[in-house]
Amino acid sequence: MTEPLRLGIAGLGTVGTGVVKIVRRKAALLEARAGRPVEIVAVSARNRDKDRGVSLSDYAWEDDPVALAKRDDVDVFVELMGGSDGPAKAATEAALAAGKDVVTANKAMLAHHGTELAQLAEDHQGVLRFEAAVAGGIPVIKALTESLAGNEITRVLGVMNGTCNYILTRMESAGLPYDTVFEEANQLGYLEADPNLDVGGIDAGHKLSLLASIAFGTQVAFDDVQLEGIGCITIEDIRQAADMGYKIKLLGVTQMTGRGLEQRMTPCLVPDTSPLGQLDGGTNMVVIEGDEVGQIVLRGPGAGEGPTASAVMGDIMDIARGLRVSTFGRPAASLAPVTAALGATPAPYYLRMALMDKPGALAKIATVLGEAGISINRMRQYGHIEDAAPVLIVTHKTTRADLDRALEAMSGTGVLANDPVALRIEDV
Amino acid sequence: MTEPLRLGIAGLGTVGTGVVKIVRRKAALLEARAGRPVEIVAVSARNRDKDRGVSLSDYAWEDDPVALAKRDDVDVFVELMGGSDGPAKAATEAALAAGKDVVTANKAMLAHHGTELAQLAEDHQGVLRFEAAVAGGIPVIKALTESLAGNEITRVLGVMNGTCNYILTRMESAGLPYDTVFEEANQLGYLEADPNLDVGGIDAGHKLSLLASIAFGTQVAFDDVQLEGIGCITIEDIRQAADMGYKIKLLGVTQMTGRGLEQRMTPCLVPDTSPLGQLDGGTNMVVIEGDEVGQIVLRGPGAGEGPTASAVMGDIMDIARGLRVSTFGRPAASLAPVTAALGATPAPYYLRMALMDKPGALAKIATVLGEAGISINRMRQYGHIEDAAPVLIVTHKTTRADLDRALEAMSGTGVLANDPVALRIEDV
Repeated sequence: MTEPLRLGIAGLGTVGTGVVKIVRRKAALLEARAGRPVEIVAVSARNRDKDRGVSLSDYAWEDDPVALAKRDDVDVFVELMGGSDGPAKAATEAALAAGKDVVTANKAMLAHHGTELAQLAEDHQGVLRFEAAVAGGIPVIKALTESLAGNEITRVLGVMNGTCNYILTRMESAGLPYDTVFEEANQLGYLEADPNLDVGGIDAGHKLSLLASIAFGTQVAFDDVQLEGIGCITIEDIRQAADMGYKIKLLGVTQMTGRGLEQRMTPCLVPDTSPLGQLDGGTNMVVIEGDEVGQIVLRGPGAGEGPTASAVMGDIMDIARGLRVSTFGRPAASLAPVTAALGATPAPYYLRMALMDKPGALAKIATVLGEAGISINRMRQYGHIEDAAPVLIVTHKTTRADLDRALEAMSGTGVLANDPVALRIEDV
Repeated sequence: MTEPLRLGIAGLGTVGTGVVKIVRRKAALLEARAGRPVEIVAVSARNRDKDRGVSLSDYAWEDDPVALAKRDDVDVFVELMGGSDGPAKAATEAALAAGKDVVTANKAMLAHHGTELAQLAEDHQGVLRFEAAVAGGIPVIKALTESLAGNEITRVLGVMNGTCNYILTRMESAGLPYDTVFEEANQLGYLEADPNLDVGGIDAGHKLSLLASIAFGTQVAFDDVQLEGIGCITIEDIRQAADMGYKIKLLGVTQMTGRGLEQRMTPCLVPDTSPLGQLDGGTNMVVIEGDEVGQIVLRGPGAGEGPTASAVMGDIMDIARGLRVSTFGRPAASLAPVTAALGATPAPYYLRMALMDKPGALAKIATVLGEAGISINRMRQYGHIEDAAPVLIVTHKTTRADLDRALEAMSGTGVLANDPVALRIEDV
């Protein structure tokens, strides 16, 4: 195989431009490693005239990404447009239907249509690869799909949204409230156009659903991911957690339980001495646990031109070398339908609430917890704020279902001055 | 490709037995993932009668691993005997010459004969894979060879010998001297039969030489690795380093410099807040730095039945899936000969020495350093021990060559009461 691998790249934002630069600058290195040249033949983007700092004059231009995807001279369609549906999906489907291979960084598209797109790829003997869609430059898809193929995966967890980790780290280090740091992050351009994709956990939830599919051989089931954002986290939560030896992270966790697949993307407390607890700033970390390997920790940049383009290039180089693996590590038709198990695995929880300044308020809360079968590990009431008394409770292990029942009963007591915040304490 | 992949396994120690157990216990999972059955057809070991806790009666037995390697019904020869030469090498060569694929965990064999074995594999259209040879269960070979194929690798570094890291960590946590902890490790069975393989840095040096070859496209050059063991490290060094915010690690570092390839496996000081500094106990960590991806950190168990068997199975599953990559990431014939560059990159150094109780002793040492062009960042003389005064010096950045000249000049001053210990402070 010495004929060139011919790429068509759709989407010339930061990542697409990064890929173009690598292919141009490192032609000799890529050829030495792949055993054949890697070339760009055509590109497509919304705005042809924008200066991207790299010459595109050697490549054919297509206004329509679907037309690019179908070109006879394209072997691999590189989809870097983004968006779960619309042109990205249409062009990906067109490429796969034309028997081409596809490399994408599009977590939203795969979270919503991954199983069907994988099937379409297999129907036409193509491969569909997406290393860049999860945790940027960290090779987590390959590790899970290939390196750990001799393991039953028992749990995958991690910090998969650098913006959220930046916000939580910065709140702690600067002692600033959420709203201020959110605004800072916005000014710095760290947030998606729809910030809820970041701080609501949706972007990270997309990624988690893809890891779950590979880890457990299940269909991609993003709709079954339990999603909670970080907007409820206060500086007081971060300080109280630190006092007890924990950090608060937007943590994705997926594991197969006796009742089905658990997928959670929620703020959690993790020990501050654990690798996850020590992860500051915009870095990502994925922890994979397998029955043979034990625990593997992968850490690196989760976003940015270089890291994401590096991951896209890894997939392209695999294809150039003839390395062809099923999208989710086994044939799409064999992926099992998901039975969602929310709240199946028990854990201790951190609860923060404000109680009205009434006699017996705390007793009522304690009673409700006791009646739900939830025992209290620590409880602390501290200085009044206006007419309410902040209360912190750390429970012993309980299921989320029991906890939700207790939280509902609490709201019926008439002593709550706000909605309680409940954060799982994850054993990592 | 639905016919079974047929394995011949030579060496039934901990790892070999682990692989047998996985293939037996997870037949359905492996078949689902590989798209074909993975089967063992024959095994070989020194002692046929030993009880290994797993039934071998389904498999043909060969007393001679070379005979096993040549069997017509073996597709993949799995070499888990160990030893750089002898039967392991003979059988590996026989298997490759017979056109079979080989999976090995044998770092010593590859460190000494890797380039030639890779060439032999390519001459016969076979692949030779060795994920288990470096950092046990951590998928570092695959990450470097495949995932990061779009990067110029700038540096690879890491802690690659769990026993050394255990000893250094335990010295610090228990406040025990090296000899005591060495003996403890020996009692616990953590040390190789020849302990110098561990504490002398040889085993870790083998691993580093393999990473260097992939990272920089060079022939394997273990003889050019600068090797220093941990036997010189005292509890006092560990405490002084901790005082300054450092940990001492047996650190492997390889980078391509303007003068050639640098490969070092030496005790170094690293910041205690870095991922490498935070790595306690028997765990391994490899840090890969690339021009696109920035820094990737991979952490996990570096030894043991499960983790090592997991890595062997990863290679076997790749072959079952038809994923075939050159041993060191490019054709063996294209690997460049190595020009060794020892001490090319400058760094600050930590120096510990004992000076005789003579007037002007410290001044003589300071003068020698000054004459070598090495400036002093900190210097500390503390309580006398018998007739000698311990002195610690931290230099500003200098090359190892300049430092070695200074150390030689020091020994000519007549004021040294012992051989100085010089530890590089690595920027990580």
